[in-house]
Parts: sequence; C-alpha cells; structure tokens
Amino acid sequence: MKIDQDINIGLIGFGYIASCVYRLISEQNDYIASKIRKRLKVARIAEKDPGKLKKDLPGLSEVAVSSDAGDILADDDIDIVVELIGGIVPAYDFVSKALERGKYVVTANKDMIANKGKKLFDIAESKGVDILFEASVGGGIPIIGPLKSSLASNNINKLVGILNGTTNYILTRMEKDGLSFGDALNMAQDLGYAEKDPSADIEGYDAACKLAILSSIAFSSRVVVDDVYREGITSLKAADIENARDMGYRIKLLAIGREQDRKITVKVHPALVPRDHILASIEDTYNAVYVYGNFVGQVMSYGRGAGDMPTASSVVGDIIKIARNYDRQKKGTVYGCSCFENKQISDIDEDRSKFYLLMDVLDRPGVLAKISRVFGDNSVSIESMIQKQAEKEGTARLIFIIHEVLNKNLYKSIEQISDLDVVLKVLSAIRVEDLE
Amino acid sequence: MKIDQDINIGLIGFGYIASCVYRLISEQNDYIASKIRKRLKVARIAEKDPGKLKKDLPGLSEVAVSSDAGDILADDDIDIVVELIGGIVPAYDFVSKALERGKYVVTANKDMIANKGKKLFDIAESKGVDILFEASVGGGIPIIGPLKSSLASNNINKLVGILNGTTNYILTRMEKDGLSFGDALNMAQDLGYAEKDPSADIEGYDAACKLAILSSIAFSSRVVVDDVYREGITSLKAADIENARDMGYRIKLLAIGREQDRKITVKVHPALVPRDHILASIEDTYNAVYVYGNFVGQVMSYGRGAGDMPTASSVVGDIIKIARNYDRQKKGTVYGCSCFENKQISDIDEDRSKFYLLMDVLDRPGVLAKISRVFGDNSVSIESMIQKQAEKEGTARLIFIIHEVLNKNLYKSIEQISDLDVVLKVLSAIRVEDLE
Repeated sequence: MKIDQDINIGLIGFGYIASCVYRLISEQNDYIASKIRKRLKVARIAEKDPGKLKKDLPGLSEVAVSSDAGDILADDDIDIVVELIGGIVPAYDFVSKALERGKYVVTANKDMIANKGKKLFDIAESKGVDILFEASVGGGIPIIGPLKSSLASNNINKLVGILNGTTNYILTRMEKDGLSFGDALNMAQDLGYAEKDPSADIEGYDAACKLAILSSIAFSSRVVVDDVYREGITSLKAADIENARDMGYRIKLLAIGREQDRKITVKVHPALVPRDHILASIEDTYNAVYVYGNFVGQVMSYGRGAGDMPTASSVVGDIIKIARNYDRQKKGTVYGCSCFENKQISDIDEDRSKFYLLMDVLDRPGVLAKISRVFGDNSVSIESMIQKQAEKEGTARLIFIIHEVLNKNLYKSIEQISDLDVVLKVLSAIRVEDLE
Repeated sequence: MKIDQDINIGLIGFGYIASCVYRLISEQNDYIASKIRKRLKVARIAEKDPGKLKKDLPGLSEVAVSSDAGDILADDDIDIVVELIGGIVPAYDFVSKALERGKYVVTANKDMIANKGKKLFDIAESKGVDILFEASVGGGIPIIGPLKSSLASNNINKLVGILNGTTNYILTRMEKDGLSFGDALNMAQDLGYAEKDPSADIEGYDAACKLAILSSIAFSSRVVVDDVYREGITSLKAADIENARDMGYRIKLLAIGREQDRKITVKVHPALVPRDHILASIEDTYNAVYVYGNFVGQVMSYGRGAGDMPTASSVVGDIIKIARNYDRQKKGTVYGCSCFENKQISDIDEDRSKFYLLMDVLDRPGVLAKISRVFGDNSVSIESMIQKQAEKEGTARLIFIIHEVLNKNLYKSIEQISDLDVVLKVLSAIRVEDLE
C-alpha cells in the first residue's frame, strides 16, 4: 500500500466523543489508509484539563498534549482541526481562528453551526477551506453529506425529522409501557439517555438546532435556531398517547421544515403520525430524517442519533472527505456554503395544520352546540368527534380532530372555548401530520 | 452568481432515464449552478435511433446529436460521459474507451459494474479519473456515496437490503391483499412495476447485481454477481405468507452480505423478517439498505428503488460530485476503487441459517417421531412445531421453525424427510432472519 502523505489532526477537547474519535482513528488507521491512501495522524490534543486523558489509549504518549487550544491553531503542520468541546464560547473563537489560518475544520457542534454557521462559512470560503459538521445532526446517520451531494440536484420542499433520541425514547416508553411522561423521563435519566437537566431535549431546543442546520442546506437559505417554532413534550398526557393509538396514530416529536413560495416554515412539535407511515416505526433512541425532493421523491436516513461511537463515525467520515483529495498546496472547499438564497421565515400563526384536541366539559345537552358555534365563528372545521367516559361524574371528555386550519384561528377558538361556562378545561392541542 | 466554468456532458443512450437526466439538468440548471458554481451543459447525445428523441425538450436543438457514441468519445471538450444504455455490450466498450481517454464516467448500469467493475476501476485509476455509479443500486437512495465517505471509517460486517422494488411490491400485495404469487405478478405487470419477462426481478438476479456492488464496497473486496447465492420468490405460497404473519413475521426478498474471518457470504433469498423490525415496514416498490458498522452501529437508507426521476436524481448527484471540484488540468479520483482486499467467498452449504419449513404428512401416530429422527440424525434442532388443518382428509400440515443450522444439514434432512412414506410433500423451506 502506497501512502501519499500524513494528514495531521489537532483535537480540541478530549471528552467522551473526542476520545472515541481518537480510538477510531488508532484502531482503524491501516484500514482507512488503504482506502484513502493518506494516513490520519492525531498530532496534537488540546484539553483544558489534561489530567482527564486516559493514559491507556495507544500511542497517546507520542501526541503533543496541551491545555491551550492556541497551540493547535499556531502549528502550521496541523491540516485539520477537530472541535469537540461543544457550545458557542469558546468553540466559535477557536474554530474561526483555525479557518482564518487556512485549516480545515470538522465539528459536531450543533449550537455553534445553528447559531453562527453563516459567519464561519464566510471565513472558510474566503480562505479556500471548508468546515464539515455531519456529526452535528443525527449522530452517525449520513444526512448532511447526501443533502449536499447525492441529493443536491433536487429542489427539496419538505423535510421531516425525528432528531432527538431522548424524547423519542420517552415517547416510545409512554406508548409501549403506558408510562406517564414523568416516569418515562426518569427511566431515560436512569439509563443515561436523558441528562440531569433534560430541558434542551424535552423542550425541543436540541431538535430545533438540528432542524435549523438541515433546513439551511435543504432550502439553500440560512435558518438559525431562533427562527424555529418550538413546542416540547412536557405537557403530553398518557391519555393523548392512548387516544392517538385508538385512532391509528403514534405521537412523535417531529422537526418539520417546509418551503412554499420562497417562504420557509420551521417547527418542532409533538404530532400524531399515522401508524403505518415509516416514521411511526422509529423507536427508542433512533433518529430519522425524511426528505421530499422534486426528482428523488421520498428518501429517509435512519440510525442512532447520539452516542460516542456513532458520532465518532461521522466525525471521522468528515475527516476522510477532506483528506481524500487533500492538497496542502492547493486547497479548496469540499462543499462550500450552500445558502445562496435569502428566503423569508413564515410566522407560525399563518401556518396551517390539522389538530387533535382533548377537553373536559359538563355532561349536559347543548354543550356541543356551544363549542361548535365557536369553531364555526373562527372558520375551524371539525373532521371527527368522539365522546369518552370522563373521570369525574357529570362531566364528559371530548376528542376532536380538526381539519387543516390556520393556526391563529385554532388558537383563538381554543381561548374562546376555554372561556365557555360548560367547558372545564381544554387539556391538549396537538398537531396531526398525515404524512404522505 | 459567479460561474467558474461549464462542465460538458455527453449522454450515451437517450431512453427514458437519459431523457429525464436531460430534463433535470435543463430545469434545475441555475439552481445547480448556484450550488456548485459550475454550469452543467449537455453538449452531445449519442442515440442509435436519433428519431426517438423528443423534439419538445428545451434546448435540444443546440445539442450535437449523433447515432455514434464514438463522436462523444472523440470530443476532447467532453468532460463527463454519462452511459445509460444498460447491459454489458456495447456499454462496457464505450465506458472503457471514455476512461482511457481521461474522461470521467457516470453510469446507472448495474450489470456492467457487478460483472466488469474491477477492470473499469483499474482503467480509471491508471488515468487519474473516476467512474461513479450511485444510480446502479437503489435508484434515488444515497447509499454508495455514504458507504464511500460518511461511513468509510467503519468496518462493516453485515448489510441487508431490500433491493428490488418489483418483488417487494408483489410480496406486499400477497400479504396485504391475500393474492397468490401469480395474481400479484400480473398486477405488478399491469401497473408497469414488472416487465413482460419478469425473470431478472423475480428470480433475484437484479438484486444479486446490486448486492455484488454494495458488498464490494462494504467489504473492500471484489464481489461479482456469480458469487451471489440466489433464490427467487416464484415458489412462495399464499400459505407461507399467512403462516409467517401468524408467527409475527413478514416475508421479504432479502439481499444479505456478511463478512466473518475474512470470508464473505453473499445471498439473495426470501426470508421471514420479524414484523417489528424496520425492514419489515418497507412496502410496495420502496427499497432499503440496512448497514451494520463497528462504530456507527445500525443505519438504514430508504427510498424509491427505481423509476426515471429517482434514478436521474442519483445520476445528476454523481455528476455534481465530479463537477464540484473539477479541474481540467489536474484530474483526480473522487473516491477511487475501494477493493484493496482479496477475501474468499463462502459456500452457501457452509452457511448457517434458521429455517421455516412447511410439509404435508399423513395424519397418523408416529409421523412426528419419524421426522424428528431424521432431523436428529442430521444435527437439525427444532425450535417449534405447529400442526394445522390440512386440505385433504387424513393428512396434516406441519410448520417447523428450525434453530440455526448448517445449510447442507438442513438440505440433507429435507431430502430424507421427502423420502419417508408418511410424508406427502415438503412444500416450503424458507430462511428466517431474526435481524438485530
């Protein structure tokens, strides 16, 4: 096997993902070198607490370790900087400096890309290098690469993702084991699938970052995390899961990006998904991204959305993409920034959705007429209604499926219905996505 | 938008896929140019029957059309040759000459790659160019690209595909509508999903070509179509589908590649798949490829496996991969050939599988003892047995699930059981794949 050259890598941060990246590169070095005819070499590591490094990793004694990322940035022999500390400060500073100095960058940092991606891509472009970030969305699932190459000829008008493993695990346990949200969350925490402070996952922020990244590529226009409408799963009830099942649906936390007439809608919210749609089959901590292209039709990528090994697989995949045709003398972008458009973000109030509503009302004649009148006044049209046994005597529980409706009209009718003297409480309002 | 250069494309063949490629390029030309800063230009078309060209395609009058592919090969201004005539003769001749002349090649030709890929990759490498073939497997699904880049760091020890849309459509109709194989095939033919001579699909040859291509990449060792063990779906009975369902399975035509101890097993056969595995949810003409990597874990790609528009999406995706960093002065491979190993192909007789067996026997005491003795003598171990009402009086229908067993032992025991005077007929022997 003829090896053309070594590719020198500097790792910034040496937590559990970075040490797995190190392990992958050292365990599979000959295998990778046979494929790309370059040898990957971790030449430098910067970790603010060098005491954390496991001394038993092979070859680590030959790597220059420092507590200062500046040592990597200053080293002219470093070809690729791999940033794995996460968060925006100080990661953004390190990455922008690396690009300024003409180094390629690989990162798994969804916060940084979703918030400050544009600036980084501009720097990269001006220096003729690139920043790749496959690991920032969907762990080990190849999705950013395919969107930028195999699927690049398609106009994509919609993508639907299950982008957060923690919430998908919780929803799977609620459905399969009949657990409450709280019990399922505790179970996820016990198993290490949810963090001690789980808010970024259960309130949809993590999925919103990933959706912003995917939408920017799919719609060729910059989307940042603040553009994304967000509803988490904290208020989901066991009854919602059960009612959904009875009607042939499963509840999933969906991340949906859509483009119509040069306007982009981006939203993360729980939704009822038809049980026989393949997205309803995504269980436990798995993730999936479902893409609608004007030539390819519908394609989906599926796999583990988190974990050190899948994430390391994507990080090293990006390193391989850069290394394969690496030329120290004549650099060039692998993909470049794809946001050449400037499309408007739609207001969620103007979005149209089908809804599932759950409410407790007084069990007496005329109640339905009053509710129906409010719906009618707001141009809200009922697709179906089911009355169920309520918990308290003298009350009834109503389930409505509402035809696709302008969101603001639905919100307004819920407000007015809640004020009716015959209505105890509107318990749930969850979107229904009858995915093609 | 700054356009660096035109990329001149020569299309060999102008059937329904090629004309869709032409349409995609002309409809989305500005969009693609904005992404890659090169303009794709179909400069030449060779079609042996130029009368077939639809005159209403935009811009076609400006394209040099000829009945001789040699005109494309001789034109020094053609950068990428796109071969879409299919089959080995004369496609192989055209493609090898294009590569010899330093042109890049994109093809959808599974027969050619699965049978003569190695020679083409060697020529490409010697000339510093590349031949890409994403469209040869799974239509529009990005799978070859991800295997060669995002997933390239993984040792892949297994892949399981549903690689043929025609047979998957037939099996879906057999299961959902209770049709016989013949009726489902007729329906597929009426809808244009199956050809008039459907043998390449229903006998597994099409899937075997695709499996050979995927396995060559996944296991870094050349696999040709003749290496693949093949069983089609022609002898499947409605009773098999029904029995499978009763036991919690669905029957799918699987293409399985596996590597163990540097030996490769490649096989296409119907198999019982657990109903709750995601591969069991792949319906109608959809395809999917499920990959097991040592770091990424399990990932799956899913989408339409055929049709002019999905196939054109992959063809143009490959053109984009080449065009993105195209440099007429300094060519280079995009991926290169990945078969640097030389692994042995295992004999199917030595493979181990779990089996479902269906047989009609005489309904009298001692029959099961005789059958069990044959199994025992051949080291075949029964996991479960169910007796069902048989069609003919005085007979019984037996369903066995056999523990994982050396295939040759199972084959031998079926022969001996068929010879027993109490056995009317062994009707079916189908593998069971309890996929992780």
